Amino acid sequence: MSKHGKSGCPVNLGLELFGDPWTLLIVRDLMFGGKRHFRDFLESEEHISSNILTDRLRLLTAQGIVTRTEDPAHTQRVLYHLTEKGIALLPILMQISEWSYRYAPVDEKYRPAAVPRADGGADTEAMMATLRAQHLGERHPSA
Amino acid sequence: MSKHGKSGCPVNLGLELFGDPWTLLIVRDLMFGGKRHFRDFLESEEHISSNILTDRLRLLTAQGIVTRTEDPAHTQRVLYHLTEKGIALLPILMQISEWSYRYAPVDEKYRPAAVPRADGGADTEAMMATLRAQHLGERHPSA
Repeated sequence: MSKHGKSGCPVNLGLELFGDPWTLLIVRDLMFGGKRHFRDFLESEEHISSNILTDRLRLLTAQGIVTRTEDPAHTQRVLYHLTEKGIALLPILMQISEWSYRYAPVDEKYRPAAVPRADGGADTEAMMATLRAQHLGERHPSA
Repeated sequence: MSKHGKSGCPVNLGLELFGDPWTLLIVRDLMFGGKRHFRDFLESEEHISSNILTDRLRLLTAQGIVTRTEDPAHTQRVLYHLTEKGIALLPILMQISEWSYRYAPVDEKYRPAAVPRADGGADTEAMMATLRAQHLGERHPSA
């Protein structure tokens, strides 16, 4: 791939990063599932395999969407958090959800969902503020 | 896969349909590139292969996102258009573009882009109305 991958088109560039069935599920679990440890992601309903999970976490970390830090409670374990660049994926997940609520067989247990409905405005901003507190704050807990 | 695929989560359901690097590029070409014939998609910058294109057009048609009609001008050729379900993918493409404009090396030629900036409001609605006229109208031209 060139510097720009297949092309420098903004749609293509996004799809090159997270245009696979797994990457945004990991982001979803970080955003809405409270998942922070490798093992947590394996327990999601979609049953991601550990080799795909390893690969995608490495990609997400290399791209600056996710950070790895040592878990202060368990020194052998790693904690994953979203960066600002990762939190900025929220509106994409919300629009995917909006579309699925209308056109796909969403399971009843996801209605009402943890995923907020896209309104393009205040709710999105409030949710991003919450995510910043959780993810950026957890990484740098105040003393 | 079960009726719900990997899960009934709205994020997962969307990604199962278009969570690959190619499917939404075809939708992009229908939305913003004016492409309607099989051969047109092959000419896009990302160089989709004809076997992947065949597969994805079949998937998109089976899912009711794209329709196939005979080209009245060339009886051997097929025209592809978006359905309402396909036009409803616009906000997802806009949010992917928004994110890429901020975080990915978007090529200068895409700024200012044919892809409108996401504002979650009037512009999105206007763009969808234009797409409806183009895609739903082209399929049923008035006599």
